[in-house]
Amino acid sequence: MRDVVISGVGMTRFGNLWDYSIRDLAVEASVAAMRDAGVDHVDAIYVGNFSGGTLIEQEHLGSIVADYLGLTPVPSMRVEDACASSSAALKVGFLDVASGHSDIVLVVGVEKMTDVTTERATYSLSLAGDREYEGYQGITFPGLFALVARRHMYEFGTTRRQLSLVAVKNHENALRNPNAQFHIKITPEDVEMSTLVADPLHLFDCSPISDGAAAVILTTVPIAKKLSSVPVRIAGIGQGSDTIALADRDSMVGFKATVEAARQAYKMAGISPEDVDVAEVHDCFTIAEICAIEDLGFVPKGKGGEAVESGLTSIGGKIPVNTSGGLKGKGHPVGATGVAQVVEIVEQLRGSAGDRQVENARIGLTQNLGGSGGTVVVHILEVM
Amino acid sequence: MRDVVISGVGMTRFGNLWDYSIRDLAVEASVAAMRDAGVDHVDAIYVGNFSGGTLIEQEHLGSIVADYLGLTPVPSMRVEDACASSSAALKVGFLDVASGHSDIVLVVGVEKMTDVTTERATYSLSLAGDREYEGYQGITFPGLFALVARRHMYEFGTTRRQLSLVAVKNHENALRNPNAQFHIKITPEDVEMSTLVADPLHLFDCSPISDGAAAVILTTVPIAKKLSSVPVRIAGIGQGSDTIALADRDSMVGFKATVEAARQAYKMAGISPEDVDVAEVHDCFTIAEICAIEDLGFVPKGKGGEAVESGLTSIGGKIPVNTSGGLKGKGHPVGATGVAQVVEIVEQLRGSAGDRQVENARIGLTQNLGGSGGTVVVHILEVM
Repeated sequence: MRDVVISGVGMTRFGNLWDYSIRDLAVEASVAAMRDAGVDHVDAIYVGNFSGGTLIEQEHLGSIVADYLGLTPVPSMRVEDACASSSAALKVGFLDVASGHSDIVLVVGVEKMTDVTTERATYSLSLAGDREYEGYQGITFPGLFALVARRHMYEFGTTRRQLSLVAVKNHENALRNPNAQFHIKITPEDVEMSTLVADPLHLFDCSPISDGAAAVILTTVPIAKKLSSVPVRIAGIGQGSDTIALADRDSMVGFKATVEAARQAYKMAGISPEDVDVAEVHDCFTIAEICAIEDLGFVPKGKGGEAVESGLTSIGGKIPVNTSGGLKGKGHPVGATGVAQVVEIVEQLRGSAGDRQVENARIGLTQNLGGSGGTVVVHILEVM
Repeated sequence: MRDVVISGVGMTRFGNLWDYSIRDLAVEASVAAMRDAGVDHVDAIYVGNFSGGTLIEQEHLGSIVADYLGLTPVPSMRVEDACASSSAALKVGFLDVASGHSDIVLVVGVEKMTDVTTERATYSLSLAGDREYEGYQGITFPGLFALVARRHMYEFGTTRRQLSLVAVKNHENALRNPNAQFHIKITPEDVEMSTLVADPLHLFDCSPISDGAAAVILTTVPIAKKLSSVPVRIAGIGQGSDTIALADRDSMVGFKATVEAARQAYKMAGISPEDVDVAEVHDCFTIAEICAIEDLGFVPKGKGGEAVESGLTSIGGKIPVNTSGGLKGKGHPVGATGVAQVVEIVEQLRGSAGDRQVENARIGLTQNLGGSGGTVVVHILEVM
């Protein structure tokens, strides 16, 4: 396999972008990434998108993106893996360059969610779960993750306050990210006083509904060296799957797919969890970040809540997590999230993360989860 | 790049399979392909599916397929490129093995379309076109391809009878395919007497709404040699894109994305159109087959109608096309079609196509088109 590097990154801000269509979003992020890399053509395009069909009545986004970038007849396809769609698209772009089939690849994740009602968005999101055995019975994602949270509290003594502190930290980080949806400092009391969504999860335990796009340019080492941007190598890639339905699993306090994806990625990169300097993980709900840092091996199973409370995962802590603000603070345009995580890590490894910069970050990791953990993709990036 | 071979194929029959869920369909085809290859595990799964979200309210089919095959935590993802979804998934599977990242990969295409009304299915299909500039104005795919047909008749003198003869040939071939949706011999008069859908296209110019799945196992040459099945090499892969909207193109009498995909695939395989012994092309409408055989270089532009009339593309002709019955006769479960085309070519190259066998077939080609040509994927297969 050839080494693959990220030579360009770009993203839109995340939020209620009512002036932007999905085409605008994809084009803005893609052009930003191409400009950052200093390339004016690509050999292939991979689009991560979750629910164009049910949210904006538009499938076939591969063609749309190539078209609106003016890049036809370049090959272009959409990859869907629920909330892990654009991490999966990045994996495909990696394979394309690694194989020698393409030299320069654009990967763009995009989602347009705020043109519909919250009810419709919740419905669309629920299609990432088991429609027949979960959705038809009335449970949606807040309910599923509430079950995970309750069980985690029961088995390990994780506290309501520890959940709150995940949201507090990520909002704090988002204050330093100009692209974040929220620039609001919150307290644990704000989280606990917000509307109860699915006990024990309150509104501020949940990531928001967002519009946005994020893009990266992948290429080979020789080409990257000729470009002006600082290249970041994709050192490890891992992906795991699990049952679509939460109830079909042996355990609800962690995600097997994260463990498997991390195992593959660490092995490929030849590193251990303690080598990771900074990570973006999938905090669709506060409990998900706690499970993620355990499943990735940053802390032992059951110790995630304490880790957050101790400041281990804050900027300045041993392993800063979700410096971008995470899904909670930065926003969660589903199909864009995986690539946006990678954009943040590239900024950190380049040393260009501004007020939220982690000192001496050399190795970064992203963990992107689809559904209630039916899919997880992990990427490990490192400074060259 | 490592050579990639197809070591197993499997498919369900196509049709109104009301006893089958999408899970059943994907599992039946996948297990058949794994049995044919003689493998009991895979390193990765790629699922081609177009509109799980709008047809059966189920996204995240990567997880579903891994789950119902009992193969978790194997990586699994869905690829969507409108009607070319599973050809695109096959391309990704190819890249995975070619790169050295995986050794054995399952690619399965699946679609469940008959659980909804015809109106709903037509709506879902229309999301492969330009929703804002085509769909909202009221035009659906029969209308778009009717425009192509009219223009082709105007520019080249293609006749109504030549369109009919595509359907007649493909129904004739489908009679010899046990998996085909239709086993009905038709005449040109039957086509021309059937309901007018979008002038000049009648009902029998249109492929049907279908359920079905098709699967292949991809692997390396060394592994394939240890397996019992006859391996077929993927010699060439090509993919092209075009504007999502038909009206944005310079020409409506052919598909630029087909020309581009074919150019890439011929170059990679080191062959010319005249080297192809048998082809499966995307006859979603009769005019599409005529355009395809021109755009692929089997006959000059404008001569496709005459070619069909002369028997050039019949079994026994110079270049038999759609020996399986094509989308018209075999059925068109959208996300399954691309892999099903590949299954037919593998059967032909193995010499196991029964009553529809093309003699001495050594090189075969598939052409799978998405939307009104916004995406086209071409694969070239050859006997090892």
